[in-house]
Amino acid sequence: MLTALNKNKTEFIRDIEKVAGSENILFNYDELYVYSTDSTNMTNPKELAQAVIFARDVNQVSRIMKYAYENNIPVVARSAGTNLCGACLPKNGGIILDFSKMNRIIEINKDNLLCKVEPGVVIEDLQRAVESYNLFYPPDPSNLKVSMIGGSIGLSSGGPHTFKYGSTKDFIIDLEIVLADGTITHTGCDCSKNVTGYNLTQLFVGSEGTLGIITQAVIRLIPKPEARRVMLVYFDSLEDTSKTVNDIISNLITPSVIDLMDKNTLQTIESFYPSGLLTDKASALLIEIDGFKSALDEQYDKIIEICKKNNSAYIQIAKTKEEEERIWVSRRSSFGATAKLAPNVVTEDVVVPRKNIVALVNGIRNICDKYELKTCIMGHIGDGNIHPNIALDLRNPKERQNFLNAKEELFNLAIGLNGTLSGEHGIGCEKSKFINKALDSNSLKIMKQIKKLLDPKNILNPNKIFQENE
Amino acid sequence: MLTALNKNKTEFIRDIEKVAGSENILFNYDELYVYSTDSTNMTNPKELAQAVIFARDVNQVSRIMKYAYENNIPVVARSAGTNLCGACLPKNGGIILDFSKMNRIIEINKDNLLCKVEPGVVIEDLQRAVESYNLFYPPDPSNLKVSMIGGSIGLSSGGPHTFKYGSTKDFIIDLEIVLADGTITHTGCDCSKNVTGYNLTQLFVGSEGTLGIITQAVIRLIPKPEARRVMLVYFDSLEDTSKTVNDIISNLITPSVIDLMDKNTLQTIESFYPSGLLTDKASALLIEIDGFKSALDEQYDKIIEICKKNNSAYIQIAKTKEEEERIWVSRRSSFGATAKLAPNVVTEDVVVPRKNIVALVNGIRNICDKYELKTCIMGHIGDGNIHPNIALDLRNPKERQNFLNAKEELFNLAIGLNGTLSGEHGIGCEKSKFINKALDSNSLKIMKQIKKLLDPKNILNPNKIFQENE
Repeated sequence: MLTALNKNKTEFIRDIEKVAGSENILFNYDELYVYSTDSTNMTNPKELAQAVIFARDVNQVSRIMKYAYENNIPVVARSAGTNLCGACLPKNGGIILDFSKMNRIIEINKDNLLCKVEPGVVIEDLQRAVESYNLFYPPDPSNLKVSMIGGSIGLSSGGPHTFKYGSTKDFIIDLEIVLADGTITHTGCDCSKNVTGYNLTQLFVGSEGTLGIITQAVIRLIPKPEARRVMLVYFDSLEDTSKTVNDIISNLITPSVIDLMDKNTLQTIESFYPSGLLTDKASALLIEIDGFKSALDEQYDKIIEICKKNNSAYIQIAKTKEEEERIWVSRRSSFGATAKLAPNVVTEDVVVPRKNIVALVNGIRNICDKYELKTCIMGHIGDGNIHPNIALDLRNPKERQNFLNAKEELFNLAIGLNGTLSGEHGIGCEKSKFINKALDSNSLKIMKQIKKLLDPKNILNPNKIFQENE
Repeated sequence: MLTALNKNKTEFIRDIEKVAGSENILFNYDELYVYSTDSTNMTNPKELAQAVIFARDVNQVSRIMKYAYENNIPVVARSAGTNLCGACLPKNGGIILDFSKMNRIIEINKDNLLCKVEPGVVIEDLQRAVESYNLFYPPDPSNLKVSMIGGSIGLSSGGPHTFKYGSTKDFIIDLEIVLADGTITHTGCDCSKNVTGYNLTQLFVGSEGTLGIITQAVIRLIPKPEARRVMLVYFDSLEDTSKTVNDIISNLITPSVIDLMDKNTLQTIESFYPSGLLTDKASALLIEIDGFKSALDEQYDKIIEICKKNNSAYIQIAKTKEEEERIWVSRRSSFGATAKLAPNVVTEDVVVPRKNIVALVNGIRNICDKYELKTCIMGHIGDGNIHPNIALDLRNPKERQNFLNAKEELFNLAIGLNGTLSGEHGIGCEKSKFINKALDSNSLKIMKQIKKLLDPKNILNPNKIFQENE
């Protein structure tokens, strides 16, 4: 295992103060303790970095990487730390490179439909900024009020709008990357249409900081949709819910959002954040359509017709911006509300072809019942991407073990349904031991070879995505 | 240079008959001669393969690659051979693996919004097949009546609809790949939302058969737009044309197509395929909008208002399906019509951020005037992707040299305008000597290392994208 501790601590601190600027360094125990965890919850703080360095600009990051490379010191890039898979935990110690202060929106270019940003820009801030130009950046992870674009690119995060618009990867056209040895490179250019050489940009997107460190990104934007409508449709059965989704799409409608909340989710949100959700129904679909005002009426009428035909129990329409916002706030509270049921909440992120969604949701319920886990199931049903939010007390060894057993069964279930481990949260250290179940062994071998090629000393976020010594 | 000729020819033929089936092999001179060229035109037939093998299934392809790997024989994958960059020329001899007979549409799955295809499916056939399910596969290279999906994935080709919908890469979610040594792997799964490991799928898309051989693809589909409108708008100046494009997008309209044809293009098409194009205008925009019928009127009116405000000279509206089709046939004839001006036509594919489009088009004109080259300029102005179609006699050494000089100046121009060599045609052997101008040298180094990793014996389409011995 690589660690900075093969250097004398005083010498190490003196070195990095010189390389990174003493004002940019944290190394006290309490500070390092805070950085020993992220939003994943599974991991008790225990593995500590030797230092946190605030990234300031690409040249400073390059100097830091050069130093880390020469001295075999692991470096973990981190922006907001809101990931849910242990992607930025300092598993092997070393340096945490915190990008939260590199947070400039460098350019928003309406003519070229793109913007350039640093990794520390908060996603909601980016969305607001581009919206003031009548532009739209669709990826919207639920924690967008705090999560940052650097981590979002590193994990290729998604969100409800992915169904219509695609996830983070679909919007990144160029990255400035600092490689393991400090070399700076650009992977693409300012043109979204570009087939000049291999697609390195997409190799780095979603690579969780294991292949290089992102210091700047060029993001493709689209014109902002003129209008939207939001509704919440309740059903008494999951089969009807699923059939409704298929029928909407078969009728040539692509909702901008089509999210599922199960009964437990509705009840849990309503218990802690009351907003008038119905708690006696089997499930609800949050449906949003967007586009030209003139096209919305027709789609809206058609959706309601389809819902009724499929035995919808109740249709709640947002009539004002405030009502829309209330529905959205409810939906985004699902994780937070579940967190109030027990000391911990853990969320999973499996995905299956949409045809298998009923089998997946029922299978998840069976697994969670078997292991007596309180589970709220929600997710992006249009994409086949389901999040079981599981409330438990991880200090209780039995509950912890039950969860670990359930997790493995969940992954087996999703893979058996032609799906995979993660649709938008990433692998990190939480799913790395299962990745060989999900990937073709030959493709996995290539991935490990690419990792070795780009990070020969295994200093870039080691022990993430793949496990060491495998 | 690797070549099959280090084997005795009789022995080589006997070997591959055994490996690939004798009914699947061509090795007569006249047959090999036909396969020594593609749609690029630049290269005179001269480098011949030693054999053409018709791919039949993944296991046969695996056996062929294993044999080629063991015997250091170059293998060039080819489907329709309609590429424009010399991507499937047998520069180092060896085997051409022809996928035109592996042409099954294996599955169209409406519930999962995807289809599975073999590489030899003609793109228009694929589009028609999915349209019968009310689904849509948008990428539409101009030669879609003959070009095949294998080559289209290998080059990540685009087409007019790329502006709204994205290019081939944006629709590929899983590839079955035969690696250099014959190993078979799958890069993704049936879920379009998937962040499980590195994005190998996008590493292979656009890699021009230099990293592995595609034997099957899973393609994401979208619901078919309900209606479309097509119009042709003429302008007296390029500046007005360009401003119109920007104003349309600023007004939150994303046309499904927004293509430019310059005066020479209009005149040339009209000379050879008369269809009533106006030939005295500086340029024309082919604008197509699609989506819900109810939203088209409003966009249509707005576009016309914007065109008029920007001094459009004439607006020709397609009132029937036949008129739409006539406009599209005209537009798609631009390459063929230019080909009638001289013994050869060569097309380039530079791309710049859209803001720089006027400078690019004017610069192309200046270069072509300087070198006395007959040039019809057209392309996908919304994407900043411009095709100069250059008519010339390549047998004339002066014209040939003038073209080569112009080509280099063209690339310098595009790169100077923050653009790059290719938006949708690829690099092949025609642009490989310029790739170091366009790419960051460190990214280029990584690409070459990845090539070496996946193709250590350099048998997969050698001398494409990069030049040997660089």
